[in-house]
Amino acid sequence: MDTIVLVGYIAGVLTTTAFVPQVVRAWKLKETRDLSLAMLILLAVGIFLWTCYGFWTASLPIIVANVITFVLILVLLGLKIRYK
Amino acid sequence: MDTIVLVGYIAGVLTTTAFVPQVVRAWKLKETRDLSLAMLILLAVGIFLWTCYGFWTASLPIIVANVITFVLILVLLGLKIRYK
Repeated sequence: MDTIVLVGYIAGVLTTTAFVPQVVRAWKLKETRDLSLAMLILLAVGIFLWTCYGFWTASLPIIVANVITFVLILVLLGLKIRYK
Repeated sequence: MDTIVLVGYIAGVLTTTAFVPQVVRAWKLKETRDLSLAMLILLAVGIFLWTCYGFWTASLPIIVANVITFVLILVLLGLKIRYK
């Protein structure tokens, strides 16, 4: 694997796992007031479209990264609605 | 432009502009307690690497989307540190 592809994979892992500590924080604090609902909705729609793009272009890394991120954003949306 | 590429562009615009309402919210509320610092740091590093990937692969859409997102995440990090 060349360096450029490796950097792409590391970037994908980081921007996907980034939402894990946010889910943990919202879960623990039971507070989501400072989280923007508009951000979560835009991210959910955007990441859903990225997933479609991944399927259409048969790009497994894009599919995997975006399916995981999509689930995390849905969990955050649920917590936002529950603890608003 | 075919449908797949168009969906990719729309996805990119959505996941980039998603952080604008979050910046506005943090700015207005002067509160960032519910935002995860770990999320912001992981996103900043990940998006920086996506930008490098964009330059190396000479992909203008990846460069543009990630430079804008990177600046928005840096602003959020600044607000997080200021209003923690």
